[in-house]
Amino acid sequence: LRDYSRDNLRWNGWGAVDEEYDFGGRERDAWRFIADALEMEALPATPALELEEVPLEATTLSDDELDQLAALLDDERVCADRYQRLFHAVGKSYYDLIRLRRGAIEGAPDAVVYPRDADEIAAVLAFAAERELAVVPYGGGSSVVGGVEARPGPEHRGVLTLDTTEMRELLDLDRRSRQATFQAGIYGPQLEHELGLHGMTLGHYPQSFEYSTLGGWIAARGSGQQSNRYGTADEFLAAATVVTPRGILRTRDYPHSAAGPDLNHLIAGSEGTLGVISDATVRLHELPEMRDYRGYLFRDFDSGSEAIRQIVQAEIPTAMIRLSDADETRFYGAMATVGKPESTKSKLTDQLLGATGYGEGRCLMLLGLEGDAEQVRYSQARTLAACVRHGGIPIGSSAGESWFESRFRSPYLRDPLLDRGVGVDTLETSTTWANARSLHRRIREALRDAIAARGAHGIVMGHISHTYVTGTSLYFTFVFPRDLDDEIGQWFEIKRAASDVISAHGGTISHHHGVGADHVDWIEAEKGELGIEVLRAARSGVDPDATMNPGKLLP
Amino acid sequence: LRDYSRDNLRWNGWGAVDEEYDFGGRERDAWRFIADALEMEALPATPALELEEVPLEATTLSDDELDQLAALLDDERVCADRYQRLFHAVGKSYYDLIRLRRGAIEGAPDAVVYPRDADEIAAVLAFAAERELAVVPYGGGSSVVGGVEARPGPEHRGVLTLDTTEMRELLDLDRRSRQATFQAGIYGPQLEHELGLHGMTLGHYPQSFEYSTLGGWIAARGSGQQSNRYGTADEFLAAATVVTPRGILRTRDYPHSAAGPDLNHLIAGSEGTLGVISDATVRLHELPEMRDYRGYLFRDFDSGSEAIRQIVQAEIPTAMIRLSDADETRFYGAMATVGKPESTKSKLTDQLLGATGYGEGRCLMLLGLEGDAEQVRYSQARTLAACVRHGGIPIGSSAGESWFESRFRSPYLRDPLLDRGVGVDTLETSTTWANARSLHRRIREALRDAIAARGAHGIVMGHISHTYVTGTSLYFTFVFPRDLDDEIGQWFEIKRAASDVISAHGGTISHHHGVGADHVDWIEAEKGELGIEVLRAARSGVDPDATMNPGKLLP
Repeated sequence: LRDYSRDNLRWNGWGAVDEEYDFGGRERDAWRFIADALEMEALPATPALELEEVPLEATTLSDDELDQLAALLDDERVCADRYQRLFHAVGKSYYDLIRLRRGAIEGAPDAVVYPRDADEIAAVLAFAAERELAVVPYGGGSSVVGGVEARPGPEHRGVLTLDTTEMRELLDLDRRSRQATFQAGIYGPQLEHELGLHGMTLGHYPQSFEYSTLGGWIAARGSGQQSNRYGTADEFLAAATVVTPRGILRTRDYPHSAAGPDLNHLIAGSEGTLGVISDATVRLHELPEMRDYRGYLFRDFDSGSEAIRQIVQAEIPTAMIRLSDADETRFYGAMATVGKPESTKSKLTDQLLGATGYGEGRCLMLLGLEGDAEQVRYSQARTLAACVRHGGIPIGSSAGESWFESRFRSPYLRDPLLDRGVGVDTLETSTTWANARSLHRRIREALRDAIAARGAHGIVMGHISHTYVTGTSLYFTFVFPRDLDDEIGQWFEIKRAASDVISAHGGTISHHHGVGADHVDWIEAEKGELGIEVLRAARSGVDPDATMNPGKLLP
Repeated sequence: LRDYSRDNLRWNGWGAVDEEYDFGGRERDAWRFIADALEMEALPATPALELEEVPLEATTLSDDELDQLAALLDDERVCADRYQRLFHAVGKSYYDLIRLRRGAIEGAPDAVVYPRDADEIAAVLAFAAERELAVVPYGGGSSVVGGVEARPGPEHRGVLTLDTTEMRELLDLDRRSRQATFQAGIYGPQLEHELGLHGMTLGHYPQSFEYSTLGGWIAARGSGQQSNRYGTADEFLAAATVVTPRGILRTRDYPHSAAGPDLNHLIAGSEGTLGVISDATVRLHELPEMRDYRGYLFRDFDSGSEAIRQIVQAEIPTAMIRLSDADETRFYGAMATVGKPESTKSKLTDQLLGATGYGEGRCLMLLGLEGDAEQVRYSQARTLAACVRHGGIPIGSSAGESWFESRFRSPYLRDPLLDRGVGVDTLETSTTWANARSLHRRIREALRDAIAARGAHGIVMGHISHTYVTGTSLYFTFVFPRDLDDEIGQWFEIKRAASDVISAHGGTISHHHGVGADHVDWIEAEKGELGIEVLRAARSGVDPDATMNPGKLLP
């Protein structure tokens, strides 16, 4: 298992310091292709500042105070050095990285602490309350919405970041009830490793899986790529312990209860504003006996969407259904073959597809099934029938399998793009089936227009990745030439344009990334004034002084 | 469709005034059988008071005030007559009915109002706030936990009961997204009738289905008998409008969102303490192409439970799995044949079953499948295999079908029992699979002991009725000779004994009945001190003066 000590991870980029995006020996061709796609003559060199070059104010904690913290935990688990402070200053969004790379972050934690249990967390929260410090809970730090940014509230003199990754024990495994209790700072791979020893899985594999923690998944109310089968974080959460400024909030692991509102659903999505999730009981699955990931080509996005709608509304078990729109299908297809000689066979295939209506508008669906052999075979037959009924051409398992193998790799491509003047960001929403088509179109247009507003040509790609009986997620990736004179202003414009459209036209401001700091401006439109009032009131029940993660989630 | 005007319904018993429990011409035999089972010489006559005999204080509302209310709505929708006030005084629990029948209720609403929309509800709430009246939302009034009891808080001079059943419009049907929006006061049969015209169903069929409303299902966080397929109320709820003393709280119908905690899960289970649910958007299913209800016999409760656990953990789609324990199997078996001559064939069958291990301990499972034909056939094959693997003997479809046909009838048996000195009540919980066996045993013992404490012999029956990957519900029915000198004290003793055991041994105080007034004493043990604090705080965000349904849900 990976070494997750902080100096083994990038402080200003994705993942492990010794891992890079694999261009398969065709790196030069890839850059040429990207420059062409962005209509750029050449890609500029835009290296990041070195660690020592990033402006950083001294910690506001005195040596005495640091000693007091060390007495609560121990010396090694209280850090105020430059590396630790910058590592924990922000998360891993595009906006975070461009600020880190040019030294434009607004602040950093005054110290980072690594408690080992609920008692130590409580001691840290008491210390922070006495000294008017905000506390920012931090797991893997993979938030892409500003969820772990080290911001004090107006009444705070500074920030303590509470890193949970020293808390990673399996506390209990109940095979009979198919649930397990872990400390919340455990990273994805270790969690799955421990469950795998018992033939079990949680099955929660977000793209950040390798660098995110159980507590973060719950706090952000996230979804794994196979959420159709394994559920979203609020669904797999059976019980949690949250250490709040006023004490321990603990929920119980009933399979269902009518004893009032379900507090697990207040904890899931609380984004550190109620307290620190110290452990969680989660619902498990047996390791799947069989996995089947395969591709289908559709004439267009609408026919692919209709096939999905039919599959999910017939409640046919699937692990994942992912449908790329035409732009995404084309871009990833081209990236996969860039620099390779075009074969006669693939030319002919292309012509044949074009002639039969599967031309420029064609869309790739990846359909993943997991489970016992009987269930997978049942779903294979029924999903095949549904896809074919909507004009889907089965293209076998190679696209699905190659997606599966490289499913955690694409975040590594962002750093070399950032080195070359190119911006890349993602955003996502969900809406009803009735609204999905029009919202997809509106968001694409908003992104394109906002990128074009600075005279640049962007690549805007969308896909469906999590599906429900009543609707679907919509996920967008956009690549664009950075405005090097004002890249932060440019990002705000793009972000605002897309978010305004989502908010005004029936989408949630986030399907699985969360609210963090970046989406706070849109949360009231979504929850309503009184909804915000209720959440504020609930928070005040456990954190009356708003010590926990200020500036996140609620305006 | 039924006439739901209040004088067409029993004010002190179940259902429509012109419907009775059907003994199939064997009523005398049934009473003899029940008396024998309860070890009673004879059943005493214990008739209820007539409406006019029930003591009732005059309304505290002046004629002026009643006129003001009538001006907000209209004359016909403001009632303060004896029938309306007693009809709305309490719900339909055993405890409610024995009090009504002997005239021992503590109070009744000062008036009953029937608003038609959110604006009228808001006007009523404002009126109540000005006059220091508590407001009790009331749908079908079928609560069995004191959820609609007309209790003022300490600071109130009286109670207005707000009956929602004039609000029963279908507001929107989105077939594409498979969801519909109804006003919340619609009764079950009308809701299903309207959906059925479009080939759709909600599929929520609690035993109270004919006399309960959409808003009540959500407020109580209930479960229908086919919840394995159609979900619990918190799961089928997509969005709601709640009229609170501080204004409108409205949630949105996203299929999933990570934009903070899900307020639908605060509304589901709020039991009228946040405000009045005026409309709700719910997730639908297509009307099932096929229904299959059949029976299996197991040697004992454990082997039947293990079969269920295997079925749900393999995620085989089912609509309902119901497993009676040995006492329930025996009692219902005997009730079904009471007064009929025993045939040679059934004697032989009994002997054969006994000789092969399916004797006194045998347990009946009813397994219901609903869906399209392909899915039902898939589930038939897999559930049969799982049952047989655990010693289940398939006994065909007659037991399942007869259960299905009479599934809303058994509440009608309570009233004639109450006329004859017999008490009958139910309670329920849920817990993990690991804990289910021991909790089932403990609750049975607690019920038996508490009944025996007054020198009586009770019949205590249990079953599994709602099943989950991590655990199951446990439902108990108990029949006992009433202590006619102190029937209320007797009920409190039994209720307390069972609830204490549930609370101390890993069960929730309610799987689907709710908290109401009756379970308030156990809610803090379940939610924790801080959990209660959070719920109180959230409530104060919309109802700072605790006007809404005081004394329910929270201590």
